Amino acid sequence: MSADRIVRMYGVGGPEVLRLEAVAPEAPRPGEVRLRVRAIGLNNSEAQYRRGEYPLRDTTFPTRIGRECSGVVEVLGDGVTGVAVGDFVSTIPAFDIQRGGVYGEWAVVPAAALVPVPAGLSHIEAAASWQQYLTAYGPLVERGDLGQGDVVLITAASSSVGRGAIQMARLLGCGVIATTRGRAKRDLLLAGGANHVIVTEEEDLTTRVADITGGKGFKLALDPIAGPGLAGLAEAAGQSATIVEYGQLSRDPAPFPLLPVLRKHLTIRGYTLWEITLDPARRERAVQFISGHLARGTLRPVIDRVFRLDDIVEAHHYIESGRQTGKIVIDVEGGESESGVTLSPRA
Amino acid sequence: MSADRIVRMYGVGGPEVLRLEAVAPEAPRPGEVRLRVRAIGLNNSEAQYRRGEYPLRDTTFPTRIGRECSGVVEVLGDGVTGVAVGDFVSTIPAFDIQRGGVYGEWAVVPAAALVPVPAGLSHIEAAASWQQYLTAYGPLVERGDLGQGDVVLITAASSSVGRGAIQMARLLGCGVIATTRGRAKRDLLLAGGANHVIVTEEEDLTTRVADITGGKGFKLALDPIAGPGLAGLAEAAGQSATIVEYGQLSRDPAPFPLLPVLRKHLTIRGYTLWEITLDPARRERAVQFISGHLARGTLRPVIDRVFRLDDIVEAHHYIESGRQTGKIVIDVEGGESESGVTLSPRA
Repeated sequence: MSADRIVRMYGVGGPEVLRLEAVAPEAPRPGEVRLRVRAIGLNNSEAQYRRGEYPLRDTTFPTRIGRECSGVVEVLGDGVTGVAVGDFVSTIPAFDIQRGGVYGEWAVVPAAALVPVPAGLSHIEAAASWQQYLTAYGPLVERGDLGQGDVVLITAASSSVGRGAIQMARLLGCGVIATTRGRAKRDLLLAGGANHVIVTEEEDLTTRVADITGGKGFKLALDPIAGPGLAGLAEAAGQSATIVEYGQLSRDPAPFPLLPVLRKHLTIRGYTLWEITLDPARRERAVQFISGHLARGTLRPVIDRVFRLDDIVEAHHYIESGRQTGKIVIDVEGGESESGVTLSPRA
Repeated sequence: MSADRIVRMYGVGGPEVLRLEAVAPEAPRPGEVRLRVRAIGLNNSEAQYRRGEYPLRDTTFPTRIGRECSGVVEVLGDGVTGVAVGDFVSTIPAFDIQRGGVYGEWAVVPAAALVPVPAGLSHIEAAASWQQYLTAYGPLVERGDLGQGDVVLITAASSSVGRGAIQMARLLGCGVIATTRGRAKRDLLLAGGANHVIVTEEEDLTTRVADITGGKGFKLALDPIAGPGLAGLAEAAGQSATIVEYGQLSRDPAPFPLLPVLRKHLTIRGYTLWEITLDPARRERAVQFISGHLARGTLRPVIDRVFRLDDIVEAHHYIESGRQTGKIVIDVEGGESESGVTLSPRA
């Protein structure tokens, strides 16, 4: 087995556009480092990218893909400080995927995208900790006013961001209502920290939130779906509540819920983790917060399933199946595929 | 002419449901005062109320209407402090219209809704200063981060709130882009402080905002319209901009502009002046800010037209005509109707 294999995308389309092939490692340019990759965290945004749902500027195929990995620093580009050859690091998703893609046995990434791996984390966990916690950090922590007894509603809660957001909201002392389409993932979400789970195929969200909160509604909703469900979220919202939209899982248009927005002084806000990762001060606060909790085990990534690098196409099919709850990881070091491994949070 | 005439609403409907009739003045209850009304500020929200567009809880007709007036304190209810018989005061719109309606020669209102009239204001201006400046204060001043060079977009800018918001945004050092449907009111808006006016029947809002701002977009939009135009506002918005919705002038549904909201991290927020008037600390800050500027003449209400109390039905027809720009006032003291009086800002 070559140690120089990387995954490249040969066009936009199904998982089969991803090909694993040996490519001689590139030298890092100034400000970059080359990593020997140990594990890769897969994210739904990469499946969207692969399907062509993000604008691709000046892309020539084949192109690399992937933003989240753990690995060991192998070569430093000119001018890199603060990191040394041999350091065990994670990448945080704050760089150009087309040059810096991390799917593979080696990757060249900006040194600025590296964070040290907190003590006690495995290489699998270190590849699966950043996208979801950084995403959840902005609306939950950086916002600054959530605490004991505030009710947070997390929709599509089985996703890795959803699972991470449940943990983080509980850390802050909030009560968490999680939503999931079918009842299959209900118990996992309760075990993962949700105080209440609403099964949206069977239950009316507005009624259930009103019941749970004694009519007060939620203070914050984290919603990657949008679409027609936005109206129900606005109905379920409390006075002066905020609805954070951070994705577009629904393909259907969302009506703007003007009347509840006016009546309850609601805020609907678009958010992506770039608000945190591209602002040095916010990013530093976020990394400190998340690293501290990872080291203490009060945040611990939920791993749904681990694949081998050879199975990258299968792993991308699995992302799109919607069956996962938590993170899908490629163990670049591991020869064997361990299907169905679920680590439950220590917290 | 009796001095005890008040306007009462005999049902929901056209302006004719308003009737002027002699009714013996009521005694104020504890915490209330009775005013001898000198002038009344009319607001579009009262026309909406009259048409039945607000939920009417437990209303028995006839019922009073109106929230904004200037007058002299005539009788104090038990327990009222901080105000004396003979004081010249304005009401701020922060009380139950069904008991406290001010259309008429006398009114009974909560003492907490009174503010002293700043030196130099006429009784007409004192009845026309609070609804629009309190409404504009929340998004422009209380928000706390607008200043020199920030671009504020004010839609439906010919309304009294629009005219007040133009003045207030300029006070803060902002650049103001005002919108108006037809070109008739364009020059008035420029004279009233707008740096640029977009005539929406003739010009494309997104293109014009991009031209004016060098592609940067606006930082804040104040929009009482909503409807399909929300999409254009989101397109014209700058990175991390806020769109404040404070009305529902459009009868058509608004689509939620998810893609620009996500791409630019936009915030869309529902707002009413109750956020300011029902919060004692915010209200106190707002009253201090507005009173100070009224006394110095750096805020001065734009009066579109003054009617006599006998002409209340005609005045409500005029509200609905959409021809006004600025405030419509009833001069309760004046015998004569002065049509078409427009006071331009001193600033």
